[in-house]
Amino acid sequence: MRVDFINPFINATRNVMQTMAGIREFRKAELNAEHELRAHFDVSAVIGLTGAARGTIVLSFTENIAKEMLSRLIGETVTTFDKSVCDAVGEMVNIIAGSASGELSRGTDAVIERSIPSVVLGRGHSIQHPPHIPCINIFFRTEVGEFAMQVSFKSS
Amino acid sequence: MRVDFINPFINATRNVMQTMAGIREFRKAELNAEHELRAHFDVSAVIGLTGAARGTIVLSFTENIAKEMLSRLIGETVTTFDKSVCDAVGEMVNIIAGSASGELSRGTDAVIERSIPSVVLGRGHSIQHPPHIPCINIFFRTEVGEFAMQVSFKSS
Repeated sequence: MRVDFINPFINATRNVMQTMAGIREFRKAELNAEHELRAHFDVSAVIGLTGAARGTIVLSFTENIAKEMLSRLIGETVTTFDKSVCDAVGEMVNIIAGSASGELSRGTDAVIERSIPSVVLGRGHSIQHPPHIPCINIFFRTEVGEFAMQVSFKSS
Repeated sequence: MRVDFINPFINATRNVMQTMAGIREFRKAELNAEHELRAHFDVSAVIGLTGAARGTIVLSFTENIAKEMLSRLIGETVTTFDKSVCDAVGEMVNIIAGSASGELSRGTDAVIERSIPSVVLGRGHSIQHPPHIPCINIFFRTEVGEFAMQVSFKSS
């Protein structure tokens, strides 16, 4: 996968996290090209892409960081990990995927469409993608802790 | 969601399972309309749909049933739950979603595209979809045990 396909996802994630959750501090992100996003997280939002980029975007958090994100978003302390936290994580991946797709296709007539988000819950889950599809895992380090994104797609 | 949107997924699942894994016995499937597929399963394949049907298809197995499916598919006993089992589950959801999409759009000029499959691993995981998107869970009972499909989409 070309680096210029990844940057729109990094930029969109930073922008959405800054705007929605007031995250200010992004330390250097760590990247790897494994086909599996391993099990450090408790909740993952998965969204499919079709068209000029056929693939999947995954956004993964621990329970505590997901609650902190929603607390910042709504301006109230969220203490329970419930359906509203999951819905917020799903909406975040939807907005990030939409924003990154727009940046990827800007100035071209390429169209990238996205499915609806699915939200996976479960301590110690991992997420894999097919071996023949390029895959990058990005670990974002912020003042509220670490979260991850997995970008896996083929561009046409 | 209209029942005639669900039948192509039930038919495709039965056909693919019969053809690929030699499953012969389908007892009456149980259905519910919850937005969460609860945690009876160990491995789930998730694939996104866009176009005339925007949504997600999830196929979930226990480890043992996933191994049994792959054993039947390749004609050799699979004893280890490894990446090849996950790849097979991902490929099954891809084929089922493709077949059902073809049946849904037959005789129309509607186009349904699909993303690549993501495979979720983890005992006790559950998968949720947004509350405003119609969602049906189908539990298939066969001679090798029970597996589930979650169909969640909006048709345009």
